[in-house]
Amino acid sequence: MRLPDSFYSSVRAELTEALGERGLDGFLATSPADVAYLCGFFYIATERPVYLWMPRSGDPLLVIPRLDDEYAAQQQVTVETVSYFEYPGVVTAEQTLAAALAGRGARRIGVGAGVSVGAFRALSTALGETTTLETTDAVAKLRLRKLPEEIPFHEAAARICDEMLAAGRELIADALRRGAELPREDEIARHVIGYGTDRMYADYDLVVYTTKLAGGLVYAGPNSALPHGLPTRRRVRPGDTLILSLGAAVASRFVESERTFVIGEPTPEQQRYYEADREAQEVGTQAMVAGRTCAEVNKICLDVLRGHGLGDYIRHRQGHGIGLQNHEPPWVEDGDNTVLAPGMLLSSEPGVYVPGHAGYRISDTVLVEAAGPRRLTSYPRDLASTVIEEVR
Amino acid sequence: MRLPDSFYSSVRAELTEALGERGLDGFLATSPADVAYLCGFFYIATERPVYLWMPRSGDPLLVIPRLDDEYAAQQQVTVETVSYFEYPGVVTAEQTLAAALAGRGARRIGVGAGVSVGAFRALSTALGETTTLETTDAVAKLRLRKLPEEIPFHEAAARICDEMLAAGRELIADALRRGAELPREDEIARHVIGYGTDRMYADYDLVVYTTKLAGGLVYAGPNSALPHGLPTRRRVRPGDTLILSLGAAVASRFVESERTFVIGEPTPEQQRYYEADREAQEVGTQAMVAGRTCAEVNKICLDVLRGHGLGDYIRHRQGHGIGLQNHEPPWVEDGDNTVLAPGMLLSSEPGVYVPGHAGYRISDTVLVEAAGPRRLTSYPRDLASTVIEEVR
Repeated sequence: MRLPDSFYSSVRAELTEALGERGLDGFLATSPADVAYLCGFFYIATERPVYLWMPRSGDPLLVIPRLDDEYAAQQQVTVETVSYFEYPGVVTAEQTLAAALAGRGARRIGVGAGVSVGAFRALSTALGETTTLETTDAVAKLRLRKLPEEIPFHEAAARICDEMLAAGRELIADALRRGAELPREDEIARHVIGYGTDRMYADYDLVVYTTKLAGGLVYAGPNSALPHGLPTRRRVRPGDTLILSLGAAVASRFVESERTFVIGEPTPEQQRYYEADREAQEVGTQAMVAGRTCAEVNKICLDVLRGHGLGDYIRHRQGHGIGLQNHEPPWVEDGDNTVLAPGMLLSSEPGVYVPGHAGYRISDTVLVEAAGPRRLTSYPRDLASTVIEEVR
Repeated sequence: MRLPDSFYSSVRAELTEALGERGLDGFLATSPADVAYLCGFFYIATERPVYLWMPRSGDPLLVIPRLDDEYAAQQQVTVETVSYFEYPGVVTAEQTLAAALAGRGARRIGVGAGVSVGAFRALSTALGETTTLETTDAVAKLRLRKLPEEIPFHEAAARICDEMLAAGRELIADALRRGAELPREDEIARHVIGYGTDRMYADYDLVVYTTKLAGGLVYAGPNSALPHGLPTRRRVRPGDTLILSLGAAVASRFVESERTFVIGEPTPEQQRYYEADREAQEVGTQAMVAGRTCAEVNKICLDVLRGHGLGDYIRHRQGHGIGLQNHEPPWVEDGDNTVLAPGMLLSSEPGVYVPGHAGYRISDTVLVEAAGPRRLTSYPRDLASTVIEEVR
């Protein structure tokens, strides 16, 4: 689960250029995704700060809590590392960083706008008056376009995520075949997430992540009409519409793959909503072409739903960027005028939510390529394939 | 999984007083924990902002993304709610908030220091020049001391967390009894987390959370010497030291319960490390008395390990506050001079980490009461009880 050295070299070269354009002496990474992106150290965010100094020229420096020293070594992090004992610490993480940076010519330091106000102040105080800290989009912009070395990791996650969908479907189909009690939403969720996690551990010697390996929402019937509803203890039943909204990440390179299933023969109402959503997802996905803005693509996609008279059932945008975070810029939404470019990786997931009845959402993870959009996730999308029959 | 109305009334009264002392017209909550604390709406953080306005006087106001409208209704949130369509939005969350606050006399607004620099700026811009936004510890200070209505939820989580430990132990003991292959670390992790999650769903009609219901780290042998190591695919084996580091939350009221087990007859080396850690945990827990500072307690606790000549094997502080977040202030560490007071809830978890051999950590969740410290978690701590025998 390790990206090749060439990836980190390419990122470094691009960063150096971006820093030069902005007149910055370096970038200070303060989030798990940025740190993992720039140096390959994966950790889960806690109150203990991790800071990675990436100078425009010279050697990077990683500041970590003492309790992660052996963990960083296990990950074969090659960046020079200093550690502070604990949080909040008699000597703080920020003071440790400032001491280690002394004499390295760090006058103008860029940080991402996601840093907390509290951390920003603690850093400014520790670095002193001769250093200025300012927010920059230098790394956020780099992360918009995935490098070639990242794609195989997203593809590996996509294969696992598609298999998680198949595992969820099979759990229900098997119960139907055996005439057994159908599983509960929470059981389905645990089964599919467990399947994905297990695959990661089987496939990779050293598993690393920043938030999770696999996750997902599972909801059926009326509960599926709540986009952010949690799985409940309700058993799925014949007649249900069921959403499996799953995600997986290899080396924290995320994908999502989401499908809507119908248990038993779909009613005309279910067919109508399903087919409208499938059409919007197909049209919206094909619209993900370099040169268009996110807002334009989103409108093309959601207009399909509106054209079917389903505007009142829209609850969210078409999609979002996906990478080291499961949600990241750009946003495939009316308010984002980012121009799509090759290397961008996006979710395409229009949804239809009918209160009291059910929700319908189909999501793929789509790579924008020069030749056009390419789906990394490939679980079947036609209604016949997502019907789980009572008897097979 | 719902706190009584009296809890929210008490919090409101305390907040009004704290805002008055600080000359603030209100507090703007920007994090899942603060929002849940102040109004009982539970959500998982995404890029879509949620803002809760709590004025010193007058009615609170909740700003949520449109896709969470039905979710908030399901949670029976009684606070006035306005929603914005999407993120980033043509009309942003911050603009929606500013429009809804117009005419409500919000001149000086306090926010927590955890807010991002980007959000702070977007809020300042949207609210305009007549409103000033400043960071405040008003809510952070309230959250230091748990109210009586919160304790039963922590206690319920503690019972489940202790049962998760028992479930993990039993998984291994059962395999030993049957002469079967022992489970892998990742299998144990999935088993105990699944057990805890299942209990939540069995016990509560509507499960809510801000980060998770149950979680944990499981590591054995040399891997357990890495405090932040992830579970691996390694099977546990006779002779292993094994740490089950588990957490659970009911209505996002967290506890942790962690025990170190030995599979088979402990060696003198295992006995020595175990007993030293158990003694440090006992002494450190009994030291959690109102009136002492966090730094004093931490020193009393870790001095036990140092007295046993194990100072080189210390990797972290004694513990941390625990509440709506699994880690929150105060910090039981040398750098925190917070004075302990009744109602504070703390982890007590000294650890000993011997590189190449194993780690030892015992953690309880401890409530500081006027009469002294009271452990909410109660899984046995003596070595005999945490030895998993090869044959029983």
